[in-house]
Formats: sequence, structure tokens, C-alpha cells
Amino acid sequence: MGAQFGRKEIKLALIIQKYGGTSVRDVGRLQQVARGIVEVRESGNDVVVVVSAMAGETNRLLQLAHQITDAPNTRELDVILATGEQVAIGLLSLGIQASGARARSFTGTQVRILTDNVHTRARIVNIDVERIRHALREGEVAIVAGFQGVNAEEEVTTLGRGGSDLTAVALAAALNADMCEIYTDVEGVYTADPGMVPTARKLSRITYEEMIEIASLGAKVLQPRAVEYAKNYNVSIHVRSSFTKSPGTLVVQEDQDMERVMVSGIAYNKNEAKITITRVVDRPGIAAKLFGNVADAGVVVDMIVQNISQDGHTDISFTVSRVDFHKAKELVQGVAKEIGADQVLGDDRIAKVSIVGLGMRTHSGVAAKMFRALAAEQINIMMISTSEIKVSCVIDERHTERAVRVLHDAFELQTEPPIGE
Amino acid sequence: MGAQFGRKEIKLALIIQKYGGTSVRDVGRLQQVARGIVEVRESGNDVVVVVSAMAGETNRLLQLAHQITDAPNTRELDVILATGEQVAIGLLSLGIQASGARARSFTGTQVRILTDNVHTRARIVNIDVERIRHALREGEVAIVAGFQGVNAEEEVTTLGRGGSDLTAVALAAALNADMCEIYTDVEGVYTADPGMVPTARKLSRITYEEMIEIASLGAKVLQPRAVEYAKNYNVSIHVRSSFTKSPGTLVVQEDQDMERVMVSGIAYNKNEAKITITRVVDRPGIAAKLFGNVADAGVVVDMIVQNISQDGHTDISFTVSRVDFHKAKELVQGVAKEIGADQVLGDDRIAKVSIVGLGMRTHSGVAAKMFRALAAEQINIMMISTSEIKVSCVIDERHTERAVRVLHDAFELQTEPPIGE
Repeated sequence: MGAQFGRKEIKLALIIQKYGGTSVRDVGRLQQVARGIVEVRESGNDVVVVVSAMAGETNRLLQLAHQITDAPNTRELDVILATGEQVAIGLLSLGIQASGARARSFTGTQVRILTDNVHTRARIVNIDVERIRHALREGEVAIVAGFQGVNAEEEVTTLGRGGSDLTAVALAAALNADMCEIYTDVEGVYTADPGMVPTARKLSRITYEEMIEIASLGAKVLQPRAVEYAKNYNVSIHVRSSFTKSPGTLVVQEDQDMERVMVSGIAYNKNEAKITITRVVDRPGIAAKLFGNVADAGVVVDMIVQNISQDGHTDISFTVSRVDFHKAKELVQGVAKEIGADQVLGDDRIAKVSIVGLGMRTHSGVAAKMFRALAAEQINIMMISTSEIKVSCVIDERHTERAVRVLHDAFELQTEPPIGE
Repeated sequence: MGAQFGRKEIKLALIIQKYGGTSVRDVGRLQQVARGIVEVRESGNDVVVVVSAMAGETNRLLQLAHQITDAPNTRELDVILATGEQVAIGLLSLGIQASGARARSFTGTQVRILTDNVHTRARIVNIDVERIRHALREGEVAIVAGFQGVNAEEEVTTLGRGGSDLTAVALAAALNADMCEIYTDVEGVYTADPGMVPTARKLSRITYEEMIEIASLGAKVLQPRAVEYAKNYNVSIHVRSSFTKSPGTLVVQEDQDMERVMVSGIAYNKNEAKITITRVVDRPGIAAKLFGNVADAGVVVDMIVQNISQDGHTDISFTVSRVDFHKAKELVQGVAKEIGADQVLGDDRIAKVSIVGLGMRTHSGVAAKMFRALAAEQINIMMISTSEIKVSCVIDERHTERAVRVLHDAFELQTEPPIGE
């Protein structure tokens, strides 16, 4: 892996580079990105670039649509939103040409990034790489619009927020690229938010599984669906900064050395709210009724916790995105009355703090260590949820920073692990 | 013709409507346009709408491109510019849906408006109307992006400034529509600029030939290429205001009655500059050399005047667009030296004033009447150029308004002609 790490060591490779909206937020930044691309191309590499809309553009377009109607038709919304990336590919292509290399832009329709028909969150079905291969053979840098595709009826589709990551990874898989570089405004994946934990350390490597958990837990470095796609097709991802040339974090398959690390990172999410229904009759079908209603309203539920039943009754708690808090609470209040539950309690001043690490599968006592560290700081745990490689605790929002810092210390993440990694 | 004129009299017709950028310059105006379209649809008509980019958007995109490079690659420029119309079709479709009718947007690629490969000023080769016909059968209003097409290699192309008019007319021809309505911010075609001549009168009808001359002479009501296309395919155009419901001007084929009118309108153009080369040796090949050089530099020459030769020498004058004045003058100075001409004189404070009318073909003395009217006002004529249905005079820019007014009076355009129109 080390041999593929630094840019200078990859000669005559096929590299996919993805730039987000902040990397091309104005013409000055876009020209800087263009010069970087030309450098890589001039070292002899074939380069395919995926680019997002200039920062703020997608929101501007969304606002225009929402000025007309509260619930815009998703087919038309995709037609509108796809223009953000289309402008960006044209401008970036001009920027690369101005820096002295050949370039050619491609929309999702032109490439052809074939998707299903689910507008605003379509799934990629197939990518026809012939036009890109042709451009590369002609010595051109291929610039592909992120976030968009086309369905079998030639309708424009979009892949959902963060979809440009998915475009890049899917192209890397389809082209059998040597590396998929995701350029972002941070230098890589850290053991914790460096703005919160001064001793946070940049990880040189992380596994797909850990990255999926960290991404899902609210770190916006990579779209979780893109990481899953990379895992399925074994695409090596390099998360790095578009501001510096220093190496970032490789997202790769698990290997022997990695087993040594118990916990790779601490994640947090302040964007959730908690709802508790007390004294629910413990009877089959109750949970189905409760969460069926919530799901039908389009509200996504994250954690669900149900304690053991006492005297035939139980308490059920769950978390939802904070924007859905009031809607979800109202829905649950209706159901609670129906099923004769006692009370519906809500709290939207919570945070979820999580430890993520592949090593948990083989090390015991990781969760207990987390609980002890929080207890020592008098931080009360409201809810607990675990997966194979993750433990999440819901706590009072006010304690978030302190909790992240104390966990970072407890698992000694500031120092490089002794063997491997 | 009268029977097709008023909106209420056209039942179960297929109508093409084209809205320019000012008609959709903000969401409020766009919703107003949408409601108008729904009204026409609900009267039982099939409606196909062509829309331009929201006012200012094309210039914003052009500026972005020009911030990157002075001479943007035209293929990429088309990719960028086409997004303006793509946003507009999506938003207008949402607006129509919000007003209660079904609608579906189409890009130039989706329709398929097949063009040649000349980016930024492509010509339409063929239109595949099957998708539009299908949408109409489904009871949908079809919203088509103006100004754009696609070439045989699936590249995005654009048709040049004013190209949305051409899209509308070409669609009207391909769909064999009953009427092509061009909505604009004026109420129709006038005998002269109403802002300049208070007695200017809206024409109820004008021939294609006259409209082409008036459009070419600087009136921005309709793109000349679109009128030529309409003439070739006999498409009836109705130029009307998007602000009022009153009928505008029909652009149609010549008929018997029209022969009675000598002059239909007065046009002017303040956007030109004049260059004169004095004492050019009168020898074959000199003009070819002179204008060959100018054409090679991409400068379009409008009028060319050469007087009879005296003692083997002659003076040659010509006009160019004012933005090309300095470039053209420099080019000509080079050639003038080579061929031993005396001087190169330039003047960018001129105006071209023209009278246009089919009747000129059969009436004598029209030009003389024009010259007398200007002379009576002490307005000096610097250059004269005539075509079958037009006489143009170059004068000092300061006299433009006065010249237009005096010509409007001289040809009695304020009053409806006695017989026919």
C-alpha cells in the first residue's frame, strides 16, 4: 500500500479525483484545482475528475424551486439541480485548458451513468466508460459531473446529497482505476474532530467498515453509500485536502496489522433528538405499529432502545434527526393514546457520542471502558446502542466536547499504535 | 387570418409559445407566465412552451467563463450556457404543475434538437418530435429549453443569441403547429421605436421579408434567422406582450393587400462605426484583399460603399459593429500602407437609419422622398445603401431621434393605410 501512497510514486496510473463544492467555490479556487490536476496529468498519469456544484449553488437552486412549490416534483427538481454540476464541469474544463492541458467535460447523460428511476436519490445501475476511455486515449483529462445520472428513459436523475463521492467511486470501479482520491477541506480522517480535540491524530489508514460507521455517525468526510460501494468493488480511496499536498487517509480493506487497534476514532452527532414512550404494554405488534407510523411519515429513525419488561410494561426510546423531532413526537403521541401508554417524553438537546473500531470484535471490555471514562467525568448516559464495531451513547448535548475529549484520552488515540497501522 | 388571431377563437389547436428571459426574470414573473399557460391549456389547446434562461443568467455564466479565460473553448462554453435554459424549464414546469396542469420539461438533448457541430452558433438539422407528441397525448404541457440542441456526437450545442426564437419556430414547423406565439416585453412590431416616436403605431401584420430587414437593422423583437426559418416553412408567428392579453403583430406571408404600403417601418441602429480608406488605387483585387483581411479576423462588415473612380483612385467606406471598430481600423491601416492608399478615417459616432417596406419594389421615388425629408432637417447623409425592400442612410449619431421622427412623418406611418394594411 505504501508504494501507492504518495502522488510522486504513482507513475502512469489511472487516477480518479473528486473535488467537492468548497474546492471550486469561486473561480480562484477552481483555477488552483485546475493547476493541480494539470500537474498530475503532466507526470504521465491518466486523470478522470469528478466535480460537485460550486459551493452554495445546489442550495440556491433548491430555494428557487421551493419558492414555487413546497413539494416540487422530483423529476423536475433533478433537471434543475443537475445544472450545478454541469456549470462546474464546463468551468473546470476551461480552467484545465487555460493551464495548458487538454480536457473534456461529460454530463451524467453523456458518460452514461445509468441509474434507476428514483429521482433525487437514484442508484447507479451501470456506467458506460467508452467515451471516457476515448478521451483518455486522446490525451484529455475527463471531467465528469458528480451527483447526476440518467435513467433508461433519458431522464436526468440525481444521487442524493454527497452523491459526487459515489460517482467518483463508481467510476473508479468501472474504469478499474489505481486510486480514487477524494479532495475535501480537511486533511484526512482523524481520531476525533480536531477542532474539538487538540491531540486528535490523522489516521494514515482506516478500513471501509470503520469509515462507514464514522461517516454514518455524522462526520461529513465521505458519503456512507460511496464507502460501501468502494468496499464491494475493492476501490482504494484516498481522502485528502485540496489545500495541501500532504497525504491524507487511505480507506482500504482490513489487513492483519489493523487487528491491533481497539478503537480507531471517536465520532459525535449533535443533530439528533430523543423520544421516549413510557409504560408501553409489552405485546407483539406494538413496536411495529409505533415505528410503522413514523416510517410512513418519511421520518428516519436512528437508535431504538427497549428495556426489559417489568410487570408487563416497558419503556421505548428512539432517536430521530432534529428537524423531524416535532413531527415524530406528534405522531407518537397519537399512537401512545391508542395503545394506552403512559407518557411521551422528548428531548432535542442531546448528542450521540460513539467509539468506532474493528478491534472491538476481538477485544472485550471496550464498551465498559467507555462507560467508565464517561462516568468518571460525571457524564450521564441516557441511551446505549452497539454494533459489531461501534458503541454509541446518547448524552446531554452540553457535555459533547468533554465526552469526546475524555474518550480520546481513554483510548490513547493521540499516539500512534505500537504495531501495524 | 383574422380567425386565428384572437386567443379565444383558437380551440383545440396546437400552439407554440416562446417566453424570453425577461418574462421569467424572477419567480413571481415565472408564476404569472405559468398561470397564463395553464389558462390556454384549459381552453382545450395543446401547448408546447419554449423558454429562455432567466434574465441575466446567460451573462452571469459568460462572465464566469471569461474570468477563467479570454477565449473559452466553445464546446465547454455551450455546456455551461445550456444550463440557464435547463433551470428555466424545470422551474416553469414546477410553476405549471403548481397552477394545476400537468407539465414535463425537455432539454435540447432530450427532445432531440439535432444540430451541426458549430458550437455557440449551431444550425438546427432535425427535430425528433416523438417525445413531445407523447407528452401532449398524455395531456402534458411540454416545456422545451430554447437556445440549445445536441449534435450527432451527443455534444451540447447552442444556437447563438436569440436562439430561443429559432427553437420555437423550428418546433412549430416540425409539429405543424397552428401558431407560434413569441412573447416579449413590447406589444408587437411598431412602425418605429415608440420610445422615440410618440405617434408610432403597432402593425397588425408584417411580412417575413420586412420583419427580417427590421430585425437585422437592430430591432430586437425577433431573431432574423428565426424569421427566415418561419418564411421557409410558412410558420405563422404572433409577436405579443407577456404583460397584456391584447393581440400583437402577425408575421406572415405577403398578400395582395399589402402591396399598397410603400414603407412599413423605420428602423435605426446606433451600434455601428464607419471606416473610410481614401484614394485607393482602383485595381482588381484590392477590395478582396481589404475585406478578406477583415473577415479573417472575425469582424462582420455591414454596409460597404465605393464611389466611382476618379483619376484611377477611389474612396471605400464600410461599417462594422462598434465593438470591432478599433480592431478593424488597425487591420485596415496595415492594408492601406501596403496598397499605397492615402488615409484611413474612422468614426464611431454614427447611426444607421432605415426605411423598410415591401412596397418599394413597385413604387418609385421612395428613396428620393427619404433623402428630401432628411435634407429638409439639415441632416447630412454620410453613406447610402439599398436593398430591394430597404434604404439605409448613415448619419451623425446625434441626429438619430430627429431623423426617425421626420421619416415616420414623411411616410405618414402614424395613420392606418387606406386599403388593406
